[in-house]
Amino acid sequence: MSVTQQAPATRSEHDLIGDREIPVEAYWGVHSLRAKENFDITGTSLSGNPHLITALARVKQAAARANHELGLLDDARARAIDQACEAIANGSLHDQFIIDPIQGGAGTSTNMNANEVIANLALEIMGHAKGEYSFLHPNDHVNLSQSTNDAYPTAVNIATHFATQPLLAAMTVLENSCLAKAKEFRGVVKMGRTQLQDAVPMTVGQEFGGWAVTLREDRDRLAESLSLVTEINLGATAIGTGLNAPAGYAESARGHLAALTGLPLTTSPDLIEATSDVGAFVHLSGVLKRVALKISKICNDLRLLSSGPRAGLNDLQLPAVQSGSSIMPGKVNPVIPEVVNQIAYQVVGYDMTVTMAAEGGQLQLNAFEPVIAHSIGLSLKHLTNGCLTLASRCIDGITVDEDALRREVENSIGLVTALNPRLGYSASTSIALEALHSGRGVAELVLERGLLSAEDLNELLKPERLANLSD
Amino acid sequence: MSVTQQAPATRSEHDLIGDREIPVEAYWGVHSLRAKENFDITGTSLSGNPHLITALARVKQAAARANHELGLLDDARARAIDQACEAIANGSLHDQFIIDPIQGGAGTSTNMNANEVIANLALEIMGHAKGEYSFLHPNDHVNLSQSTNDAYPTAVNIATHFATQPLLAAMTVLENSCLAKAKEFRGVVKMGRTQLQDAVPMTVGQEFGGWAVTLREDRDRLAESLSLVTEINLGATAIGTGLNAPAGYAESARGHLAALTGLPLTTSPDLIEATSDVGAFVHLSGVLKRVALKISKICNDLRLLSSGPRAGLNDLQLPAVQSGSSIMPGKVNPVIPEVVNQIAYQVVGYDMTVTMAAEGGQLQLNAFEPVIAHSIGLSLKHLTNGCLTLASRCIDGITVDEDALRREVENSIGLVTALNPRLGYSASTSIALEALHSGRGVAELVLERGLLSAEDLNELLKPERLANLSD
Amino acid sequence: MSVTQQAPATRSEHDLIGDREIPVEAYWGVHSLRAKENFDITGTSLSGNPHLITALARVKQAAARANHELGLLDDARARAIDQACEAIANGSLHDQFIIDPIQGGAGTSTNMNANEVIANLALEIMGHAKGEYSFLHPNDHVNLSQSTNDAYPTAVNIATHFATQPLLAAMTVLENSCLAKAKEFRGVVKMGRTQLQDAVPMTVGQEFGGWAVTLREDRDRLAESLSLVTEINLGATAIGTGLNAPAGYAESARGHLAALTGLPLTTSPDLIEATSDVGAFVHLSGVLKRVALKISKICNDLRLLSSGPRAGLNDLQLPAVQSGSSIMPGKVNPVIPEVVNQIAYQVVGYDMTVTMAAEGGQLQLNAFEPVIAHSIGLSLKHLTNGCLTLASRCIDGITVDEDALRREVENSIGLVTALNPRLGYSASTSIALEALHSGRGVAELVLERGLLSAEDLNELLKPERLANLSD
Amino acid sequence: MSVTQQAPATRSEHDLIGDREIPVEAYWGVHSLRAKENFDITGTSLSGNPHLITALARVKQAAARANHELGLLDDARARAIDQACEAIANGSLHDQFIIDPIQGGAGTSTNMNANEVIANLALEIMGHAKGEYSFLHPNDHVNLSQSTNDAYPTAVNIATHFATQPLLAAMTVLENSCLAKAKEFRGVVKMGRTQLQDAVPMTVGQEFGGWAVTLREDRDRLAESLSLVTEINLGATAIGTGLNAPAGYAESARGHLAALTGLPLTTSPDLIEATSDVGAFVHLSGVLKRVALKISKICNDLRLLSSGPRAGLNDLQLPAVQSGSSIMPGKVNPVIPEVVNQIAYQVVGYDMTVTMAAEGGQLQLNAFEPVIAHSIGLSLKHLTNGCLTLASRCIDGITVDEDALRREVENSIGLVTALNPRLGYSASTSIALEALHSGRGVAELVLERGLLSAEDLNELLKPERLANLSD
Repeated sequence: MSVTQQAPATRSEHDLIGDREIPVEAYWGVHSLRAKENFDITGTSLSGNPHLITALARVKQAAARANHELGLLDDARARAIDQACEAIANGSLHDQFIIDPIQGGAGTSTNMNANEVIANLALEIMGHAKGEYSFLHPNDHVNLSQSTNDAYPTAVNIATHFATQPLLAAMTVLENSCLAKAKEFRGVVKMGRTQLQDAVPMTVGQEFGGWAVTLREDRDRLAESLSLVTEINLGATAIGTGLNAPAGYAESARGHLAALTGLPLTTSPDLIEATSDVGAFVHLSGVLKRVALKISKICNDLRLLSSGPRAGLNDLQLPAVQSGSSIMPGKVNPVIPEVVNQIAYQVVGYDMTVTMAAEGGQLQLNAFEPVIAHSIGLSLKHLTNGCLTLASRCIDGITVDEDALRREVENSIGLVTALNPRLGYSASTSIALEALHSGRGVAELVLERGLLSAEDLNELLKPERLANLSD
Repeated sequence: MSVTQQAPATRSEHDLIGDREIPVEAYWGVHSLRAKENFDITGTSLSGNPHLITALARVKQAAARANHELGLLDDARARAIDQACEAIANGSLHDQFIIDPIQGGAGTSTNMNANEVIANLALEIMGHAKGEYSFLHPNDHVNLSQSTNDAYPTAVNIATHFATQPLLAAMTVLENSCLAKAKEFRGVVKMGRTQLQDAVPMTVGQEFGGWAVTLREDRDRLAESLSLVTEINLGATAIGTGLNAPAGYAESARGHLAALTGLPLTTSPDLIEATSDVGAFVHLSGVLKRVALKISKICNDLRLLSSGPRAGLNDLQLPAVQSGSSIMPGKVNPVIPEVVNQIAYQVVGYDMTVTMAAEGGQLQLNAFEPVIAHSIGLSLKHLTNGCLTLASRCIDGITVDEDALRREVENSIGLVTALNPRLGYSASTSIALEALHSGRGVAELVLERGLLSAEDLNELLKPERLANLSD
Repeated sequence: MSVTQQAPATRSEHDLIGDREIPVEAYWGVHSLRAKENFDITGTSLSGNPHLITALARVKQAAARANHELGLLDDARARAIDQACEAIANGSLHDQFIIDPIQGGAGTSTNMNANEVIANLALEIMGHAKGEYSFLHPNDHVNLSQSTNDAYPTAVNIATHFATQPLLAAMTVLENSCLAKAKEFRGVVKMGRTQLQDAVPMTVGQEFGGWAVTLREDRDRLAESLSLVTEINLGATAIGTGLNAPAGYAESARGHLAALTGLPLTTSPDLIEATSDVGAFVHLSGVLKRVALKISKICNDLRLLSSGPRAGLNDLQLPAVQSGSSIMPGKVNPVIPEVVNQIAYQVVGYDMTVTMAAEGGQLQLNAFEPVIAHSIGLSLKHLTNGCLTLASRCIDGITVDEDALRREVENSIGLVTALNPRLGYSASTSIALEALHSGRGVAELVLERGLLSAEDLNELLKPERLANLSD
Repeated sequence: MSVTQQAPATRSEHDLIGDREIPVEAYWGVHSLRAKENFDITGTSLSGNPHLITALARVKQAAARANHELGLLDDARARAIDQACEAIANGSLHDQFIIDPIQGGAGTSTNMNANEVIANLALEIMGHAKGEYSFLHPNDHVNLSQSTNDAYPTAVNIATHFATQPLLAAMTVLENSCLAKAKEFRGVVKMGRTQLQDAVPMTVGQEFGGWAVTLREDRDRLAESLSLVTEINLGATAIGTGLNAPAGYAESARGHLAALTGLPLTTSPDLIEATSDVGAFVHLSGVLKRVALKISKICNDLRLLSSGPRAGLNDLQLPAVQSGSSIMPGKVNPVIPEVVNQIAYQVVGYDMTVTMAAEGGQLQLNAFEPVIAHSIGLSLKHLTNGCLTLASRCIDGITVDEDALRREVENSIGLVTALNPRLGYSASTSIALEALHSGRGVAELVLERGLLSAEDLNELLKPERLANLSD
C-alpha cells in the first residue's frame, strides 16, 4: 500500500565506529551526532555563538578559494562550498551547530560539524541530496588542506576579534558617560579620600574624569591585545609542519580570509609554536581581567559614594531603577553597580579557567581550546552588557548636592594639609589633633593660635585652589 | 464598533518609580519587569534553575503556614498561597521567572519575582484577576514576616542541597565504574611511576582502586559540607534582628520548611552573623574545587596512560567514541577525559568567582549572593554531567594488554629497588646505572656479578610479590 | 712543614653522578649539596621551617623504633638514630637543613637532607666521624623501610598540624576581642546597613558579636579539617605497595609516631591512593581561604565603619597606632585592618598555588608537594600574625560615640520599615519617598498624615525594640 | 665618677601618639619604629628588596634637586640630601629599612622609613647629630613637595623596572639554550603528538625551536609592558591634585629622576587617575602569569618527553643532576623542570593576590600597593632564577637517541595521514584501523592492498618530507 511507501526519514552515515542513522533534514552528520551524544554538559550548543560559526564559515570559504586557486578543488565544488559558507556566515543554518561548547577533542567536533553542514548545504546547491558525500566530502573537500588544529584556532581568533568590537564600543559609551558627568560636575568641590579617611579637596568632575581616563587606557590595552589574535596558523595543518597543505596554500588562504573578514591577518612565523600556543588568549583574558577589575573598582566607588541616604557618605545620588527591598519600603539600592561587580567577579573566574586550560596544553597542541574560547566569549559578552547597563542605567542619571559637598569640605580637618608648607608638619599635626578631639574647625584654631592672618588663611583654604581647579 | 472593544491586553502596576503596563497573561509584575529590564547580562533567566524556583516556592509556602498559624494570615489567603506554592514547586509557571540570574540587589528581584508570581496565581485561585493586589498583595501577604535577606538565602541553601544530590549519585556511579575495573584488572601487573619515571611494580587494579577511594573520600567531604547549608536564617528578616517577624515565627517557619523539603533544617544561632555570612558557600565551593581537582587528576592520568598507540605509555586503551581528527584518519583521542578536564577548569574558575563575591560582602549583607548561587549551580551541574559521562563513555570501556604490561615490568630497571634490602643502596645504584647505560636487564646483571642466586632472584623479583598482591 | 699538616677541611662523598667534597663540619652530605646547588630559587632554606624539621625528625625516630622492634636495626644504631632525632626535634642542627623550600623531586631532597644530618649526628654519637657511612648509612639505616614518598608526606602532615595550633589560638584571641567589644557595646544602637544603604537599627554589640560567631565557626571548620592530616601513609614506601617495608612495620611506626607527637594518627586504608593524593591539603587550604575571606570582610567593615573622621560613616573609632601620612598632618589611617586585608589576599594566592600544584600531580605521586607545604605554611604563619595583630592593635582599642550613633538612628528613613506591618508596603513607601525628598523625618510625616498616634509611634520606633534588644 | 657619664644610648622622637626612645645608632626614627611594631607578619624586612630601596633613594634625590631648583630647598640641605640618597642608592644603610614588606598604610611607612634614614644620614653629612630634625626634617625637607601617594608608587614603578631586567636577560639565556638544541637536533625526526596521541612526524629541532619562539614572544610582551611602569605620578602629592607641590615641580622632578635612573619616564596625563590606579601592575602581573604558564608548559613537556627510561615516551634524556630517590637506587627524576613548574604555580598565586589587591582599591588611592609590589617582586625573582636554572641545569644537557626516535616514526600509524590526499579520508581510516588492530605497519598494508607503488610510498613516507625539513 502507498501508506508504507514513505520517503525514508533518515540517511545512513559511517565513521570509524560504525553506522548511524541521521535524520534526512539534518545538515549535520555522523561526526556531529557522536559529539552531541558524547558531550552533554551545559545543555547549550554552539548555535549560541554566532561569532564562532561565522568565523568558521569564513575560514572554510577562504580555504576553498585557496584550494581552487591551487588547482586542488574543481570549479563546481569550489563554487558550491563558497556559496554554502557565504550563507552560513550570513546567518543560515546556525541551528545545525548542535554540539556543546564544552567538548573534548581540541575543537575537532566543532570543525567536523562545520565541515558536515557546509558539505551538505553545498551538496544541495550542486543538486545532490544531503549525505551524498561521494560528490563532495566533508573531510576530503571542505576540510581540504586543513586540520582542526589550524582551522579551528584560526576561527576562534577571528570570532574573538569579532566579539571584542562590541566591548570596545561599549567601553567608549561608558567612557563618554563619565566624561559627560566630569563636565557637568566640573566645579563641584568635595573631599577626596585616601584609605577611606578624609584627605584633601578635589572636584566631583575630577573623580568622573579619572574614571574616564581609566576606561580609555583599558580600551587601549584591549585594542592592542587584538593584534595578537590577528596572527593565525592557517596552513599549519595537524602540528605546524603543514603536512598535506600544498606550497602557497597558507599565503593564499590567509589572503582570502583577510579579504573576507576585513581583518589584517598575518601568518605566524613559526607554525609549530603557533599550533600549540594559546598565549594570545592568556594575554587577552588577562587584559579582560584588568578591564573587569577597573570597572569593579568604579562600581565599588559608586556604591561607596552613594551610601546613605543619611548614614553614609552620600557624595553622589544614583538614579532609582527599581524598588530595593521587599520589606524596607522606599529603600533604593545600587543594583546596577552591584550587577556589574558580579560580572567582574565572573571575568576573574573565567580568567582562572583560561589559566588552568592554558597550562594544561601538552606537546604539539592544546586540547582545551574549547573551554578557553567559551570562557573568553562569556567575558566579552558579559562585560559588553555590563558597560552599557552601567552607562545608561546608572552613570547617566547621577546627581549631586553641591551645597552639601562644599560644607563637607569646609568642615574638614584635611584642610590643614594646605597649611603644611607654611606651618610645618609638626605644628600642623598639633592643629589637626586639636580639631579632631574638640570637634572644632581648622581655620578657627589657626586664627586662635595666631598662626596666620585671616586673609592668608582664606586664600590658602579656598576649595577651588585646593582642588587645583584652574579657572 | 466591536472591533475596538477588545479586552485590554495589559494591566497597570505601580512601584516607587511610577506606573508600568504589564501583559494581562503575565503572572510576574512591575518589580519583575523592572529587574528584567535592568539586568540584561547573560541572555538567560532564572527559569533555567528549577531547583531554585522550587526552593523559593517551598520557603514561601512554609512562611504562609507559619503566618497562618500565628494568626497573621487569614484562612483564605493562606490556603491560596499554599496551593500556588505547591503548584510552582511541582513545576508550574517556571517560565514566569523572567529575570537574569546575574542581578544586582542581593536577590531582591528574584524574591520579588517569586512574590508576584505566587500572588497572582493565588489571586486566580481565590477567583480574582491577576493584579488585584488589594485582595492579596505580593509584599504584604506573600512576603509577610520575611525579607529578601532571609527568604532568598534560605531558598539558595535548599536549592543547593537539592542540586548536590545528583552529583553525589553521579560520583557513586563513577566510583562504581572504577571499582568494577579494579576487580577486573586485579591481577594485572604494570609499572608504577613516580615523577613520570618508572618506579616499582603495581597492578592496574590497584590504580583503579585508588581512584575509587579518592572519589569516595571526596563524596564524603561533599556530603559533610551539606550540613552547613541546612542551617538557615529564616526569621532574620532584613539584617538578622528579626524586625517585623513575630515571636515564634522563625521556629514555626523552619518546622514547616523542614517538613515540606524533607531536610533536617536548623535555624542559625546568630541571625545577625548568618545574614551577612556566605561561609557555607565558600566552603562548599572549596569542596567542589577539590572534587574537580581530583577528577581532573584522574583524567590527566587516563590521558597519559592511554597515550600512544605506539609512541606512548599505552598502559590502557580507552574506548573509541568518535573519530579523533579531521585530517589524521583513524586517530582516536581521549575526548571524554578532555571534556572532563575542562569541566574541572571551569569549577576552579567558578570557585574564584565565589571567592571574589564572598570577599565583597559588606556590613549586614552580601549583595553578591546571586553570582555565588549561579556559580555553584553551574559547578554542580557540570560536575554531575562530567562524572556520568566519564563513567559510561570512558571508564566502563577501558581494556588493557596484560602481556605487554607484564613485559614492561620484567624489562624494568625499577626492579632493582626490591634488591635494595639485600644489596644495599650503593651496590643497587651501581647495577641500575649499568642497566640504564647498557640497555641490559637488572636480573642478568645481578647474576653476572654473582650477587644473588637465580633462585633468590626469581623469588625477589616476582611481580606479584612486588605489587603486594597477596593471593 | 707543620704548616702543611692541617687536618683536611673536607670529606669526600659519592652519589650516582660522582664524588664531591663536603666540609668536615657539615652534617649534611652529598645529596643535600647537590640539591642546594640545583635549587636556588627563593634565597631561603628549610631551616626557616622548624615545624617541618621537627616533624621529619619524629618520623625518622618512629621509623627507627619500628625497625628496631622488627629486628631490622641493631641496638646501637637504633639508639644513636633515636638520640639524634630527639636532639633535632628539640632544636639542634636546624641550620644544617640547607635546601631551598621550593625544590623539585617531591621532597626527596628534604628527606635526603634529614637522612644525612641524622646519620652524621648518630655517627658522632656512636663515636665515629661524620661521613663514615659504613657504620650507619643515611639510606640503608636512617631511611630503612621508608621512601621519601611516605616519610615526607607524613612529616608534612605533622608539621601542618603543629603549625595550625598557633592559628587556632590566635583566632580564639581575636574572637575574644570581638566578644569583649560585643559586651562593651551591648546597648549602643546604630543603623544597620544592607548594600551600603541605611536599613534598620541594630546595636554595635550585635555587629561585634556577629564577627565573633563567624570566627568561631571558622575555627571549628579549621579544627575539623585537621582530622584529614592525621591520616598518614607511613609504610607505603615508594608508591603505596609497601615494597621493602616488612609486615607489621606500618602499624608499629604509626604507633611510635603517635606517641612521639601526641597526635591521634591513623594509617590510610588505601596506601596507593594516599601516596598520590594531596586532597587533605587542598581541603585545608580551602578552609584557610575561607578564614582569610571572613577576616578580610571584617577588616573591610572596620575600615568602612571607621571612615571619616568627618566625611565618612564614622560609626567606630579605631585606635591610632602610627601617623597616617607623610604630607597630611594628623591623618590617622586604618593601617591594621589594611595589613590584614593584604594577608588575606596572600592566602587566596597561596590557595591558587596549591590548586595548581594539586592538579599537576601525576600517576602514583604528586611531585609538587614542596610548594604545597610551603604555601600552606605561609598561610598559617601570616594568618596567625594577622589575627594577633588585629586583636591587640585594633579591635581592643575601638571606641564609639554613643550619642552620635543614636542620632543617626533617630534621623533615619529606615525606621519606616517598622511601620510596614501597620501601614502596608505601599503607604510606607510613599512616606519614605517624601522623607527622602524633603529631608524631613519619618515620625513627623506619619503624624502629619494622621496615620498613627504619637504614642503608638513612639513605641513602634523605640530603637531598642527595633534592634531586638531584649532587656 | 666618669664611669656613670656614658653617652645616652637613645634619642627621643615624637609623633602624634607620643614620644619614643630611638637607639642613637639608628638612622630610622619614630615612624619607622611604630611601623616595625605594628606590622610583624612575615619575619622579613624591606632590606631584602634592594631594588625598592634604591628606587626610593632616587625618587628622594630627584625631588630634592627639583625643590632646590625651584628655590624651596637651600643649598646645604639639598646637597646633604643628595649625597645621602646617592649613598643609599649605592648600597649604604639598606639594613636601616626595618619594616615588614607586608604593611598597612599604602606605603606610608616605607616612605617614612626612607625619609628618616635619608634625613639622619644627611644630618650627619651636615655635621649634626641624628635626630636634630630642626636642621633638616624628614617630612618638611626630605619629603618636600611629595606625598607617599606619589613618591612611593613612583619608586615601586622604578623598582619593578629594575627587577624586570634580570628576568628579561634570563629569558634570553633560556631562549638561547633552546635555540642551541634546535640547531643540534635539527635533522632528528620524531613523532609529533596531539592530545597525547601519536600524530605526524616532526623534528626534535622543531620542538625546541617552538619553545624558543614562545619564550621570545613572551619576552617581547614583558618588555612592552614595561612602558606602563615608566609612566609615573610624581607631583600628584596626596590625591593627584598636586596640592603643596609648586608649579614646575612635577616636570623638574621627572627630569631629574629620568636622568638618575636612565629610564624614559613620563608623567601621567591625569594624576587623579594615576594615583588611584594600579592597572600597570595588574597588566604586568598578567604578563608574568603568561610567562609562567608558558614555561610551565615547556617543563610539563620536558617531563613527559623524558618519561621512562623504559616504560615512558623516552624521546629526550635530561641530564642527571642528583639522585632521584631515597629508596629506588639509580632513579633519576626531572627535578629541574619540577622546581620550575612550582615557580610557575607560585606566580599564578601571586597574580591572584595582585588581582584581589587591585580590586580592593577605593576612591583616591589603592591602600594595598605594598602586597602588590611584594608579589610582583617575588614573581620576578623566582622566574629569573627558574629560567637560569632550567637553561643551565636541564636544557643545555639534554640528549636524544636518534635511531630510536626514527624507529618510532617508521613504526607509526600516523604515517597514514600523508596518504590522505592520495587515498582519501575513508580508505585511509580503514588502513589505520587495520594497522592498529593487527599491530602491522601502514606501508605494508598499503602495498598488500595494492593502493600505491613501493616507489610512491617511499617518497610519500620519507620522514624528512613529512617533517617539512626543507634541506
